[in-house]
Amino acid sequence: MDIGFVGLGSMGSGMARRLVGAGHRVKVWNRSPGPAEALAKEGAEPVSRPEAAFGGEAVVSMLANDAAVREVVLGQGLPAARPGLLHLSMSTITVKLCQEMEAAHARAGVLLVGAPVLGRPDVAAAGQLNILAAGEEAAVEKAAPLLAAMGRKTWRIGPRPHQASLVKLAVNFSLAAAIEAMSEAFALVEAHGLDPHIAHELMSGTLFAAPAYQGYGRTIADRAFEPAGFKLPLGLKDVRSAMEAGEAVGAPMPFASVMRDNFLDAIAHGDSEKDWSAVSQVARRRAGLV
Amino acid sequence: MDIGFVGLGSMGSGMARRLVGAGHRVKVWNRSPGPAEALAKEGAEPVSRPEAAFGGEAVVSMLANDAAVREVVLGQGLPAARPGLLHLSMSTITVKLCQEMEAAHARAGVLLVGAPVLGRPDVAAAGQLNILAAGEEAAVEKAAPLLAAMGRKTWRIGPRPHQASLVKLAVNFSLAAAIEAMSEAFALVEAHGLDPHIAHELMSGTLFAAPAYQGYGRTIADRAFEPAGFKLPLGLKDVRSAMEAGEAVGAPMPFASVMRDNFLDAIAHGDSEKDWSAVSQVARRRAGLV
Amino acid sequence: MDIGFVGLGSMGSGMARRLVGAGHRVKVWNRSPGPAEALAKEGAEPVSRPEAAFGGEAVVSMLANDAAVREVVLGQGLPAARPGLLHLSMSTITVKLCQEMEAAHARAGVLLVGAPVLGRPDVAAAGQLNILAAGEEAAVEKAAPLLAAMGRKTWRIGPRPHQASLVKLAVNFSLAAAIEAMSEAFALVEAHGLDPHIAHELMSGTLFAAPAYQGYGRTIADRAFEPAGFKLPLGLKDVRSAMEAGEAVGAPMPFASVMRDNFLDAIAHGDSEKDWSAVSQVARRRAGLV
Amino acid sequence: MDIGFVGLGSMGSGMARRLVGAGHRVKVWNRSPGPAEALAKEGAEPVSRPEAAFGGEAVVSMLANDAAVREVVLGQGLPAARPGLLHLSMSTITVKLCQEMEAAHARAGVLLVGAPVLGRPDVAAAGQLNILAAGEEAAVEKAAPLLAAMGRKTWRIGPRPHQASLVKLAVNFSLAAAIEAMSEAFALVEAHGLDPHIAHELMSGTLFAAPAYQGYGRTIADRAFEPAGFKLPLGLKDVRSAMEAGEAVGAPMPFASVMRDNFLDAIAHGDSEKDWSAVSQVARRRAGLV
Repeated sequence: MDIGFVGLGSMGSGMARRLVGAGHRVKVWNRSPGPAEALAKEGAEPVSRPEAAFGGEAVVSMLANDAAVREVVLGQGLPAARPGLLHLSMSTITVKLCQEMEAAHARAGVLLVGAPVLGRPDVAAAGQLNILAAGEEAAVEKAAPLLAAMGRKTWRIGPRPHQASLVKLAVNFSLAAAIEAMSEAFALVEAHGLDPHIAHELMSGTLFAAPAYQGYGRTIADRAFEPAGFKLPLGLKDVRSAMEAGEAVGAPMPFASVMRDNFLDAIAHGDSEKDWSAVSQVARRRAGLV
Repeated sequence: MDIGFVGLGSMGSGMARRLVGAGHRVKVWNRSPGPAEALAKEGAEPVSRPEAAFGGEAVVSMLANDAAVREVVLGQGLPAARPGLLHLSMSTITVKLCQEMEAAHARAGVLLVGAPVLGRPDVAAAGQLNILAAGEEAAVEKAAPLLAAMGRKTWRIGPRPHQASLVKLAVNFSLAAAIEAMSEAFALVEAHGLDPHIAHELMSGTLFAAPAYQGYGRTIADRAFEPAGFKLPLGLKDVRSAMEAGEAVGAPMPFASVMRDNFLDAIAHGDSEKDWSAVSQVARRRAGLV
Repeated sequence: MDIGFVGLGSMGSGMARRLVGAGHRVKVWNRSPGPAEALAKEGAEPVSRPEAAFGGEAVVSMLANDAAVREVVLGQGLPAARPGLLHLSMSTITVKLCQEMEAAHARAGVLLVGAPVLGRPDVAAAGQLNILAAGEEAAVEKAAPLLAAMGRKTWRIGPRPHQASLVKLAVNFSLAAAIEAMSEAFALVEAHGLDPHIAHELMSGTLFAAPAYQGYGRTIADRAFEPAGFKLPLGLKDVRSAMEAGEAVGAPMPFASVMRDNFLDAIAHGDSEKDWSAVSQVARRRAGLV
Repeated sequence: MDIGFVGLGSMGSGMARRLVGAGHRVKVWNRSPGPAEALAKEGAEPVSRPEAAFGGEAVVSMLANDAAVREVVLGQGLPAARPGLLHLSMSTITVKLCQEMEAAHARAGVLLVGAPVLGRPDVAAAGQLNILAAGEEAAVEKAAPLLAAMGRKTWRIGPRPHQASLVKLAVNFSLAAAIEAMSEAFALVEAHGLDPHIAHELMSGTLFAAPAYQGYGRTIADRAFEPAGFKLPLGLKDVRSAMEAGEAVGAPMPFASVMRDNFLDAIAHGDSEKDWSAVSQVARRRAGLV
């Protein structure tokens, strides 16, 4: 397919590379030129403006946040898009923005598929992402080969693109909750003089034998928060986005409220550059362990 | 070994049966005679008073709560125990009571091993429990054959019996937190018109692919809270016990506080006979979904 | 003085009337013409566009929310203002917007005084408002006669206009907290079979003998939430604004988080048209009293 | 009247002195003899055992906590009391214990009036306490002259003694909530670079012009937590007692839950000897201001 790709960050570069590797002709754009030049060596075609990436059969966007999507997609790419274009919006954005995008794409006659992902850069580079896809049946079908090149599995969420953003935020909220639960459990154990690793090994070897607990539990017990896999302020942003999605429908989320306060506490204590699991230091500090 | 077993509830009966099956001579006691008679058919020897179960090489106690342990163990069995006896305390009790038991057992010259378990009655009957064992090296070693007959694995927690109670409470707190996190995430998704099963399948197939999320997530999405696997007031009791353990060392547990309030909300709405995952109805009710 | 006044709602109309009564020549503007015509009878001069109110020595704005201030002040009035104008911004707005206004006014050479108020429409009509004033010494001095005409007392907050917004939000947060505290205390008392009025009379006659507790306590005990003095969604807005101000400086506000969730709960249960003290029904509902 | 008085702490000594001054013949008992000897100089009659104070027409108890009441009243005084005795229980105790006392007094044929107080030692010494009285009409009437000698006003709560404990706990919960609300409001203001005294003066001069806010607000703004008027762990105890009273009837108290965690945080940071308003340091510490 003739496609475009905007947003070549640590996630996007790996995803675009997978598409090139699958034989698609990919026009790539990034705010800073470096990543595009790197992909050029592998057969991608760098373009100087986002608009140029919206002229083919499909375009994939993998941008940092709502602001970048508003500027690059709503402000530049979409107005230049040809009717009939398929847009895979894979950035993690708010439900509200995705709902605005649904309306804007409908007006522009562009097919929109919300397709945020689960996975870190190494997983993206290996084409093993879990992709949450929401949109009209036909649009998701048309996107199938592109999704197949980037992910290990596509999870069908529903007919409206913003539903994928909603579920992605629900998953990130659940991850933050798992981090906070372990933080409190481990601080309790440590405050009683026991090594948290003992609780972590038991939990991640039995009822909680899953990546979320095995990976973050180890990080928390080891207190190895740098380098950051996902920076703490991004965790605050996603929890806040989940809370805003709850506010839109009158859904209280007391766990999210606790986490928001704890992320602020962590930021006030200088942990903005650390992994979001560093929020676990809040429970330790409050218990007098730091 | 010549041993005793007090407390033949749904868990205890299966555990005692495993010990009989392993060739041990087991004197069994239960407040109501039925369960002891049933075990007699398989070779156990019913005794009419707890004291009679504290006369062998070892005794296992699997009682309902702190009150039962105070009465049966501290009040009846221990005063009659012969010095040198090994006591495996497998009930889920508070850290405070287990610390009192440590002192009482030392005075009586009885070896104490704290050995609470993870697993439901069917797992106990199959001898596949995960056992948390804490106590002096020699005592845990002496208990090894009995633990092996009841569990799939023994997790060594530490040298002091109450440390096993502490970690058991930390695990149950984490389970309750997982239930609440899914409750809020699913209510958010449902309030936006999406079927929570979609979020559950995604989560339990990826980052949260563990029994805690797969099992309880299904129960919550299906709203199948009866029959109860673990009644809601018992969940409140364990969360409160974890909070008390935190209070003893100045460890705040805001997630536990949220859960305590939600369990009270659920009880005020008549869900005391349901499974503790029925606390998920609180998030739905607060969002106007019930 | 030759002044302008934009925003003639239930508060603004009474405030503008006080200025006319004090002998100032007041150009008045409101989105809907009715209120301006009513003030014309008392000597005010209705103008058809906000710009016309920004041409004198001073202008007072009393608008509904951030959006109205962005449109009417930043979008229309300020660009047309003559350098040297004094602007009294008396609307309750976010700290963030007030900080943007500080920059915009500096660029326009317009003096800005942040002057939100405490008091209901009847208090405004009587010129008995408590006014929080923040801004440069000279600007607040110049505003003194206008403030004196509208309020019983001017409280000097600090040199920067946004500081008045900050303290106003802190006061409204404290009011919401008092409402929630009484809600929980009264629900506890009622759940034990006692009439909450007994607790209210004791509290408002002793340690809590202040308007916040006497007035709202009565409303809560009587459950007389209509007509609304201050609608519930406005309470949520102010609590959220306080939380955002906290987020800007890394200040966790767990009480605000609890209130935000409770306001959502109340909205999900159809109380959006009621007084914000109707949030007290959340504590009663959760305790099974509704 | 011939009466007894047990518990001569900083509150009890002043109250007993008032009764002596009113012309009653008072047998006084205290665990340590000092306070009784001091009162002897003013005409009271020291007795060596609590039982001796339960032999007249009435007895007043003002003890430190549940444990002291269980020992001195239920364990020693009540068994020795003559039928028809009137007992004014003025200690701040749990609802649960007061309910146990109702049953025990009924069995002993002793009239019980629950009469906890609002006020500090200086207020007690001046006979200006606010007294919460609950019990049978006749009992409270009979107690009237004694209550009049100790308080400025008696607030009738209800027919059952424990109702006074319940309302007392609700009031102390409300005080703790006011302290936490100011703590968060002042930390927010301070984190933005403003002196909290400005917010305190505004609040305590307008909507919150009541002792609770004027007194504690000043203490919090001044950070003058020593000497302690009411030690922090006692605040935790009363909040916990309110939570237990809520638990008994299925009433969630999310504000109380936040406060409990904050009191633990304060204790973990070494503030156990300070006034309970020192819990305000938790909000400052979490915001990075300490």
